[in-house]
Amino acid sequence: MHVDQLDAAQVAQALAEAESDYQALLAQGLSLDLTRGKPSAEQTNLSNDLDGILKGHYAAQDGTDVRNYGGLDGLPEAKALFAQALQVPADEMLIAGNASLTLMYQVIDFALRFGFRKAWNKGASTPKFLCPVPGYDRHFAICEYLGIEMVTLPMLDDGPDMDVAEALVQELDNVCGIWCVPRFSNPTGCVYSEATLARLAELPKLAQNDFIVMYDNAYAVHALTDDAPALGNIRDYAVAAGTENHIVQFGSTSKITFAGAGVAFLSTSKANLAVLKHHLGFQTIGPDKVNQLRHVAFFQNHEGLMAHMTRHASIMKPRFNAVLTTLDAKLGGTGMGTWISPEGGYFVSFETRPGLAKTVIRLASDAGIKLTPAGATFPYGNDPQDSNIRIAPSFPSIADVQATMDAFVLCVRLATLRSLASSGTFGS
Amino acid sequence: MHVDQLDAAQVAQALAEAESDYQALLAQGLSLDLTRGKPSAEQTNLSNDLDGILKGHYAAQDGTDVRNYGGLDGLPEAKALFAQALQVPADEMLIAGNASLTLMYQVIDFALRFGFRKAWNKGASTPKFLCPVPGYDRHFAICEYLGIEMVTLPMLDDGPDMDVAEALVQELDNVCGIWCVPRFSNPTGCVYSEATLARLAELPKLAQNDFIVMYDNAYAVHALTDDAPALGNIRDYAVAAGTENHIVQFGSTSKITFAGAGVAFLSTSKANLAVLKHHLGFQTIGPDKVNQLRHVAFFQNHEGLMAHMTRHASIMKPRFNAVLTTLDAKLGGTGMGTWISPEGGYFVSFETRPGLAKTVIRLASDAGIKLTPAGATFPYGNDPQDSNIRIAPSFPSIADVQATMDAFVLCVRLATLRSLASSGTFGS
Repeated sequence: MHVDQLDAAQVAQALAEAESDYQALLAQGLSLDLTRGKPSAEQTNLSNDLDGILKGHYAAQDGTDVRNYGGLDGLPEAKALFAQALQVPADEMLIAGNASLTLMYQVIDFALRFGFRKAWNKGASTPKFLCPVPGYDRHFAICEYLGIEMVTLPMLDDGPDMDVAEALVQELDNVCGIWCVPRFSNPTGCVYSEATLARLAELPKLAQNDFIVMYDNAYAVHALTDDAPALGNIRDYAVAAGTENHIVQFGSTSKITFAGAGVAFLSTSKANLAVLKHHLGFQTIGPDKVNQLRHVAFFQNHEGLMAHMTRHASIMKPRFNAVLTTLDAKLGGTGMGTWISPEGGYFVSFETRPGLAKTVIRLASDAGIKLTPAGATFPYGNDPQDSNIRIAPSFPSIADVQATMDAFVLCVRLATLRSLASSGTFGS
Repeated sequence: MHVDQLDAAQVAQALAEAESDYQALLAQGLSLDLTRGKPSAEQTNLSNDLDGILKGHYAAQDGTDVRNYGGLDGLPEAKALFAQALQVPADEMLIAGNASLTLMYQVIDFALRFGFRKAWNKGASTPKFLCPVPGYDRHFAICEYLGIEMVTLPMLDDGPDMDVAEALVQELDNVCGIWCVPRFSNPTGCVYSEATLARLAELPKLAQNDFIVMYDNAYAVHALTDDAPALGNIRDYAVAAGTENHIVQFGSTSKITFAGAGVAFLSTSKANLAVLKHHLGFQTIGPDKVNQLRHVAFFQNHEGLMAHMTRHASIMKPRFNAVLTTLDAKLGGTGMGTWISPEGGYFVSFETRPGLAKTVIRLASDAGIKLTPAGATFPYGNDPQDSNIRIAPSFPSIADVQATMDAFVLCVRLATLRSLASSGTFGS
């Protein structure tokens, strides 16, 4: 029954049950962790053949000895392979080291300091960035660290609220860019619609500044099912809009092969690539080309990579199912929270009733269940509604995901009922 | 015979011979390259077993799954291994990605922007760095890129001229640090003496600023012979002086295993490491630990690493011999140039008579011999004496090194004799 339909006595009874269940949960002394979106050992096992795959052959297709210095933008065959994941031409790719986060940091740092065409920080006011919320904490941390003011806008089911984005870009001074995770967004799981992409590609034209769309396509090939929604091609929209110098797309194999020992890449216009390579040349002689060659040898081609992702999906799907069936069974129709069923990516985004996220996370923590800190999905760690909780089911075993979710829904139930009981406002 | 002892007729005759020899050289149509200090394929072959050495075992000694995220400062066993190369305790190490240049850039960038204790750029004047010359172009490029003014000081046979360094640090405003390559310095090959290290460790005390010794120990284990001079322990001197927060030491396996696919590291005080890790956390989730584990598995221990370096030396030594015996045989006693015989590292530093380096390099270039550009070993590419030429013999075959050196000494001879003939000042 929906909690808004419960009368005082029903709330009291349901609360008593929840308190009792919670005492039993505490008594279990669990120690579980659902915090970070990292692959399980079962997933990384899929790529164990990477080490040793070269069998002594260290030459790239063009004869380059990958063991030696050189090549700031990576191997041509790695460009060709990963360009297909991002739906861009191979000559608009740069293949780097093990972290796309590093590439994102570098792009914003370069743009702030020198600019692709002119530096951002020459404006009168603090540079600003649009941040669809909820979003990814490490994106927000880069902005905060580099002194960029974050302006939030709502995330809808088909991407950022573009009406708000367009208004903010025109109304505010010195808006420099927007963060996007366009497919299986972190954490809501939404996929940007064609209409959103088209408007995103036009957005730089509305800005006073040298606006950059930071297009973190982290989950480009990370569908859970064969019929998960595809993502449109932002590069085509940008070329049509004449804004290809204002889009920088990112990706990596962190959640394809090894998290932390994979290959990161970006794609942008050739003009931007030339600027980036100039800047990168002061801080590196080049990326680890041996690891790039390993990845090419391992996947062979895009079809090999997609077949590999199907194997990931078969490991991930039961974990997502454990989350979603538990939420449906225990909280469906109760009004105690809302969530969407993502068809890819690494997260389920859960919304408590307003003001309860911190309480739920504390209750879970007291019961030995570690959840992502409240507010982590918002700039400055501040969720104004105190309602968003990011659930990351990839790493634990299926049994642990199930145990954690059983505890989680109980914590949601207890927090909601305690709140209702103390507020004294009941339905019917 | 020394050129200063030649009379006009002897110069004219020697010049005619040199011109004739040079025409013959041009007719050979050579295409040789002695520019960059990178290992030969024969050297990188020594480490071919790196790929595949893990044989499916991806667990660190403490059980860490190296395939997954985490660990900003690298694997403990990698710290223990490389700490011995730098003569420091393992808990003062940070093990990173594939490029020590990146670590150097990051340290200077962090120090400028935020400081280890306070930011450098809060001073009234431009931050300044002491640069012993000749030195390493990529060090100088970092300073120029980040807006740090470079102040040169002479490099002596036992390290930087510390009298000058101490005077500059006290006389100039806002001196923030000094670049050092303490063993087999790039390019002179000198090894800093104990007295130099002791004074270097005291230098931060004389500075007004939060002074940093950028101690690029790139050739710490890169001796050509067993009896090459050892390097003292800067960390011990710093601890004695109480300046351990002002020394940051760097190293990598770029010239031990694979150039560009090795492991880079730094060592500094625990207090500094904590600051660095805080900053690094905004731009990476952690380094490639799989590659770190590969390196540990490959070397096993410091003795294994040193045995590997002996194999490098046996490949490098004949190339250095080709350079040095040719210089001795063709230019020894002529007064046409000076050089020292390094006992390790990657370079031979040659000094022409003043004003002739560019000419020699152009003559060589016209004959198909690529040499490091004149001035590259000086800040802003400006060698005020126009005399330093860096010779890097590691990469070509021994035959090519010999052919290049035969051409090089001819170019030196021709440039010197042309200069003498046109100046009209002769000896005897």
